[in-house]
Amino acid sequence: MELVIDKLIDRIRVLSNPTVVGLDPQLDFIPAKLKEEAFAAHGATPKAVAEAFLVFNKAIIDAVSDLVPAVKPQVAMYERYGVEGVRCFGDTVAYAKAKGLIVIGDCKRGDIASSAEGYSNGHIGEIILEGEKYRPFNEDFITINPYLGYDSVSPFLKDCEMFGAGLFVLVKTSNPHGGQIQDLIADGEPVYRRVGQLVSQWGEGLVGRHGYSSVGAVVGATYPRQAAELRRQMPHTFFLVPGYGAQGGKAEDLAVCFDRDGAGAIVNSSRGIIAAYRLDAYKTSFSEEQFALAARQAVIDMRDDIIRFLPN
Amino acid sequence: MELVIDKLIDRIRVLSNPTVVGLDPQLDFIPAKLKEEAFAAHGATPKAVAEAFLVFNKAIIDAVSDLVPAVKPQVAMYERYGVEGVRCFGDTVAYAKAKGLIVIGDCKRGDIASSAEGYSNGHIGEIILEGEKYRPFNEDFITINPYLGYDSVSPFLKDCEMFGAGLFVLVKTSNPHGGQIQDLIADGEPVYRRVGQLVSQWGEGLVGRHGYSSVGAVVGATYPRQAAELRRQMPHTFFLVPGYGAQGGKAEDLAVCFDRDGAGAIVNSSRGIIAAYRLDAYKTSFSEEQFALAARQAVIDMRDDIIRFLPN
Repeated sequence: MELVIDKLIDRIRVLSNPTVVGLDPQLDFIPAKLKEEAFAAHGATPKAVAEAFLVFNKAIIDAVSDLVPAVKPQVAMYERYGVEGVRCFGDTVAYAKAKGLIVIGDCKRGDIASSAEGYSNGHIGEIILEGEKYRPFNEDFITINPYLGYDSVSPFLKDCEMFGAGLFVLVKTSNPHGGQIQDLIADGEPVYRRVGQLVSQWGEGLVGRHGYSSVGAVVGATYPRQAAELRRQMPHTFFLVPGYGAQGGKAEDLAVCFDRDGAGAIVNSSRGIIAAYRLDAYKTSFSEEQFALAARQAVIDMRDDIIRFLPN
Repeated sequence: MELVIDKLIDRIRVLSNPTVVGLDPQLDFIPAKLKEEAFAAHGATPKAVAEAFLVFNKAIIDAVSDLVPAVKPQVAMYERYGVEGVRCFGDTVAYAKAKGLIVIGDCKRGDIASSAEGYSNGHIGEIILEGEKYRPFNEDFITINPYLGYDSVSPFLKDCEMFGAGLFVLVKTSNPHGGQIQDLIADGEPVYRRVGQLVSQWGEGLVGRHGYSSVGAVVGATYPRQAAELRRQMPHTFFLVPGYGAQGGKAEDLAVCFDRDGAGAIVNSSRGIIAAYRLDAYKTSFSEEQFALAARQAVIDMRDDIIRFLPN
């Protein structure tokens, strides 16, 4: 079975674009007309928000699917609205996959073995009911949390092997207090580097033809020195890099996440793309109703901003 | 507003029962008749499983609600079945609350600030749509993961203050590889104790009239020496103790999780209760169709097993 990391790297090369669009909708981002239509149909309810999110996401996906290899919906933004929100998450994944995009489900799950198996079956594996097979959420990759150690990860690894899926394990996150635990010094080394070693080991059985494993790492763009260390330490681990744009990470800083061939990482931007129409840089050129076109332009600008710092 | 930790401690005292039933259904646990009815109505589908889980959970809740202060549904067991599973999770929470039980949503969420806010709003907070207020999942407590540090926790703390909810933060988990990261020695102390210190601090503003905070800690029953250390180190932190029963934790070992008054902790058992009818200890006395009665007896036995090691 083809490894999903190989598919992702191939797609990045074809498009010359190592970026991913974070589909993290918030009600504030939804253009007034679209919101009004959903509220008129369903009242001021979570269902209406979920409907508006889905229309919004589909328009963004349609506008960027020929430019980016992948999208990354953040489950929290959907779970906020309960069951209807979760349904919208699932529908968004399905729509993006139908449009040829690779989907990274940003769910950061982590639990003991029997529960990890539940999450894994639901997100990247399958369930079988009297011979009928179902793939409930059916992402290509998901993010997971390493705090519970190997036996909380192994059910996901098993599904990666069986179903050609992939993982990005939190190593060094982009947020201001990420270091509170991750930067503690254990036996002369920060915890995030110890976690990095574990993630490398966990991915050893899933290294593809480009030299990278389907078990990747989340390494924030906001800590370039640490990212550079990790890049050297983990030569077979692909990085998912959040923190570009709205969180303050700059293209020149995150170039260290890539290898000498300009491969090895994919950079995420969420509100900088999907809510581009509200930013000063775009709002004179694009109206609110042109939010998807603004997102397309923001994707092009992000791609060009990042690839100018990479080797050809 | 009354703190939820005070409600929990009051209820434990009234019932003389510091235990919680883990509502972690698996299809194997569902009695044949109940499963057949659901599959007959909905086909061999995730919806059928979700319906069967809900009937199963309601019967267990009805059988134990006068004996235990709380239930703890494990979200992974529902998320495995996609949107329909998640709906069953929400319906289970609502039913348990209607029966007077305190609900601990075992979701182990953890994400950067803006996403943590989404999870918090959905699980323990509220959303407001044109003046209409909704509480999507509406648990009393949830479990969260500390790996991303304070700014990933603060949105939850805010909702604890606003809505009288509570948290149990993973500190020392019950699983075999839990120590891979948690036991790393940082500045002479294991990471889990550093996390314990942070959890104590995070909960300082939410200490109730019994001296415990609404910000508790998950401390596994399978590591009694470490649990005893943490009990001394965290005098105002209430412990949620998984690992009793099926995972190997014994009542005499987990007595160290309690304080000198026999307070300060609540012990979880999941399959040892909800699937008791399949265990040797119960299957001669209870038929498959009497699964809820078997669960009731298992709750009584668990309570008696644990309280005999506690001070009066």
